[in-house]
Amino acid sequence: MIRHLNVRTSKRTEFVDITQDIQALIDDSGIKEGVCYVYVPHTTAAVTINEGADPSVKRDILMMLEKLVPERAGYAHMEGNSDAHIKSSLIGASEVIIIEGGRLQLGTWQSVFFCEFDGPRHRRVVIKIVGD
Amino acid sequence: MIRHLNVRTSKRTEFVDITQDIQALIDDSGIKEGVCYVYVPHTTAAVTINEGADPSVKRDILMMLEKLVPERAGYAHMEGNSDAHIKSSLIGASEVIIIEGGRLQLGTWQSVFFCEFDGPRHRRVVIKIVGD
Amino acid sequence: MIRHLNVRTSKRTEFVDITQDIQALIDDSGIKEGVCYVYVPHTTAAVTINEGADPSVKRDILMMLEKLVPERAGYAHMEGNSDAHIKSSLIGASEVIIIEGGRLQLGTWQSVFFCEFDGPRHRRVVIKIVGD
Repeated sequence: MIRHLNVRTSKRTEFVDITQDIQALIDDSGIKEGVCYVYVPHTTAAVTINEGADPSVKRDILMMLEKLVPERAGYAHMEGNSDAHIKSSLIGASEVIIIEGGRLQLGTWQSVFFCEFDGPRHRRVVIKIVGD
Repeated sequence: MIRHLNVRTSKRTEFVDITQDIQALIDDSGIKEGVCYVYVPHTTAAVTINEGADPSVKRDILMMLEKLVPERAGYAHMEGNSDAHIKSSLIGASEVIIIEGGRLQLGTWQSVFFCEFDGPRHRRVVIKIVGD
Repeated sequence: MIRHLNVRTSKRTEFVDITQDIQALIDDSGIKEGVCYVYVPHTTAAVTINEGADPSVKRDILMMLEKLVPERAGYAHMEGNSDAHIKSSLIGASEVIIIEGGRLQLGTWQSVFFCEFDGPRHRRVVIKIVGD
């Protein structure tokens, strides 16, 4: 089963928690045991799993990424978003999460975040759910 | 088949080679052809695949991560472990390894490492093994 | 179905677009719906998905990785390629791509790149294609 999530971002760089949207798709699928693939089909965005409880964690991650990969740094690519492409490769375009008992097997503090690095934009996330 | 590895770390940052533990679970499963998902359900840890033969490689990776993402850097998150969350997203919470002939298809020099970034702690790694 | 791609690199650090080679293997497999695992069995190389249209993007990614992780930085590992090991863990050894209608479900601008960090060498990429 393949589904698409639509994500609307409102800033240049931003983490959007998509955990509940993914869980809702798993509920719909009826699949109890299996694997969930989360895939971002964009080259200036990514997906990561990290702490969702304290919003300062996502701010710290974005702040450090900006420090390591500044928006301006003598890049060759002329569109002005090379930093976003680089962050995309550092964080990665996909995650795989195990499904057990119909639930994403995330740790206590884990949430799934869509990572916007060149917004604001309309974005898509592809979710594939496969039962055992 | 889902199994949990228990990993006890002894330092704040540390790589623990879990290759043999994963292979033992594959041996137990009897699965000859398939895929092995390695998932870390923690937000201040990660999993990576890198050289296991020379221990100086893992020390160099930890040293450079510490240089890029220092423990103190004016973070917003008040628990004092923002660096660990950031390293977790840079390295990633999951790996997928192919199984062929009952063996993890790692390259000659590859080992699978649990990456501790905020220890020492008791940690868990979730292993899911799926036959073709 | 498991296949091996041979990649010959010509520089120390280089991105090689392997998208068409992977798609050709999917065509051969006859699989229409499923998942494609791309696995790099080397500890000084990696795989990433990023923009293939403008070659300046891959040059900017390599340039920034070199700036963040210099070739010489007082490493412990004596082979002179610690930077390559570190980049390998930052970018990652595997990707998972969804197959739909017999095609890799990449975004409009996405290509799959083999990332050489310690070339020139002969390298291998392992491709596993699994139908639903």
